[in-house]
Amino acid sequence: MTPGTLTPPDGVTGTLDETRRWMRPAMQEAVERLHPVPRLISGFTLGWLTVGGSPRTGAGGKGVRPALAGLAAVAAGGRAEDAAPGAAAVEFVHAFSLVHDDIMDGDELRRHRATAWKAYGVGAAVLTGDGLLALALDTLARTGNADAVLRLTSVLVELVNGQAADTAFESRPWSGPDAVTVEEYRAMAVGKTASLLGCAASIGWLLGGGDREGSEKMDRMGRHLGLAFQAVDDLLGIWGETEVTGKAVYNDLRQGKKSLPVVAALRAGDEELVRLLEARPADGLEARRAALLIERAGGRSYTEELAERETAAALALIDEVGGRAGEELAALARYIVARRA
Amino acid sequence: MTPGTLTPPDGVTGTLDETRRWMRPAMQEAVERLHPVPRLISGFTLGWLTVGGSPRTGAGGKGVRPALAGLAAVAAGGRAEDAAPGAAAVEFVHAFSLVHDDIMDGDELRRHRATAWKAYGVGAAVLTGDGLLALALDTLARTGNADAVLRLTSVLVELVNGQAADTAFESRPWSGPDAVTVEEYRAMAVGKTASLLGCAASIGWLLGGGDREGSEKMDRMGRHLGLAFQAVDDLLGIWGETEVTGKAVYNDLRQGKKSLPVVAALRAGDEELVRLLEARPADGLEARRAALLIERAGGRSYTEELAERETAAALALIDEVGGRAGEELAALARYIVARRA
Repeated sequence: MTPGTLTPPDGVTGTLDETRRWMRPAMQEAVERLHPVPRLISGFTLGWLTVGGSPRTGAGGKGVRPALAGLAAVAAGGRAEDAAPGAAAVEFVHAFSLVHDDIMDGDELRRHRATAWKAYGVGAAVLTGDGLLALALDTLARTGNADAVLRLTSVLVELVNGQAADTAFESRPWSGPDAVTVEEYRAMAVGKTASLLGCAASIGWLLGGGDREGSEKMDRMGRHLGLAFQAVDDLLGIWGETEVTGKAVYNDLRQGKKSLPVVAALRAGDEELVRLLEARPADGLEARRAALLIERAGGRSYTEELAERETAAALALIDEVGGRAGEELAALARYIVARRA
Repeated sequence: MTPGTLTPPDGVTGTLDETRRWMRPAMQEAVERLHPVPRLISGFTLGWLTVGGSPRTGAGGKGVRPALAGLAAVAAGGRAEDAAPGAAAVEFVHAFSLVHDDIMDGDELRRHRATAWKAYGVGAAVLTGDGLLALALDTLARTGNADAVLRLTSVLVELVNGQAADTAFESRPWSGPDAVTVEEYRAMAVGKTASLLGCAASIGWLLGGGDREGSEKMDRMGRHLGLAFQAVDDLLGIWGETEVTGKAVYNDLRQGKKSLPVVAALRAGDEELVRLLEARPADGLEARRAALLIERAGGRSYTEELAERETAAALALIDEVGGRAGEELAALARYIVARRA
């Protein structure tokens, strides 16, 4: 989760707080099994510790993936805390991917703190990511639920491929036959973002005692949600206000990111837009012009419509399989997507 | 495996060739699932491809871990190829650990080729290691054998902790209460080296249809073997001949490695040895003097005896559970340990 999420409505806040209550012990117990060095860096990464290792309050991400897992367990007829090993696993995988992605992307800051590699060195960060991944898998494997484990391992392959695709986009041209297509963008976003949300929901369902068929639906639900989330994130990356996103306006355009509004807009073949993007907008005026051309070429509306469509598809599936947790799931889903674009 | 292994005797060569025959398709099929970039780097790392991506012959490691898995499957009453997903998994995990360890250690060469990060950059190497690990887990998880998966995931935690301990040894003092103890060294070597050999054998046993009790014994067998292997590797690191090891004589002493002969010797508290090691032997004469002092303090004999004891323990367990594969397993075990020290 990047900054820019709304303050959650009361019901969602309750769900998130409750989730942390039953998930945290499972995570802490797991992290205790690591050697002191990766244990410290894991605690830092998860937001529990300062860089020097002192306890830290008001910590970490919001935990929407674990909350999704817990509600899916309730939807399947179980208790939210039945999902604890799965919730911990997806949270560890999320932390692993942030630690390694920050190395690959050279990012020095995340949530207004130094990234792990910046604070502790590349080698220690690589190892800590590996440790978080090992804990994720081992925590889930200990449940003996082979279906849940297989969900997670196959999503790991998708995550790696999504990250590889995202990195490869950087060296692709802005126009011509080798330009990134909307379909390629979608596949990348499914792998990099949506697959783990699908995984959280389907694993939670399985650990709550649900059947395989329902877990497929939960997986699809989470993926729709993830695509909607990513689309909104892309909108904010261009049109988001600095005080909401914590980033400069038109940030993604200055960075040369081939995000969905850009990729969708470029299908129209506007040569001025291509020229602006190829040269990277040099100042606020140029970036503003590029944003305007993207909007005129339909890139903004395409992305907004995709976000709405994917949200609607997720909510329809929640209607179908949400059971006792239907209302809470719908509220969480809306919260994940709703952001001040 | 570092250079320095003997040419395998005919029986072992047959086992290794046969293992590659049934394992390679499972590995290739898995690697095909990766995005082209991590797929190329995986092929390079596994020795199948040149740095540019052309096919390469006479390739890769010897594959002793997969061979161990196959023979364990036979010992359990199954066929060697029943172990294919497990053999592929341990080989992928081994490759993953080499790729990431080379980043952490800053090593530029392995088996006379550039390491992955040196050839393709740190970011791509981090991602490729993650991809290899994902394939390992997913390949094994697809068998649905929850016991086998749990073996692998718990060993992953051990691998990370072993690597962390090994790295932390570098900044420990050579003498005094904070010096590395023989027990700490052993724990590190179990995690970093022995656990994966134990994992290979126990997973093979389980995939061959064996029971949990036998898999525990296979695990212990592989761990004894791994400790013996590591002890011999440490002996070669000091007293190995360059033409066998591919490294300079007294290599580990020049590198300041706290290997077992050193750690064992330092218990005697020889001040000249401590001084020499603290300053790092500056030339061949000093390194030779340090090696002599290590030998006099009993570091060499301690390590040799440990290697013999661990090998004997492994062979005794093979006697007990090796079944139809007993002879081949014993030959492979002797081959793994036997090296021209």
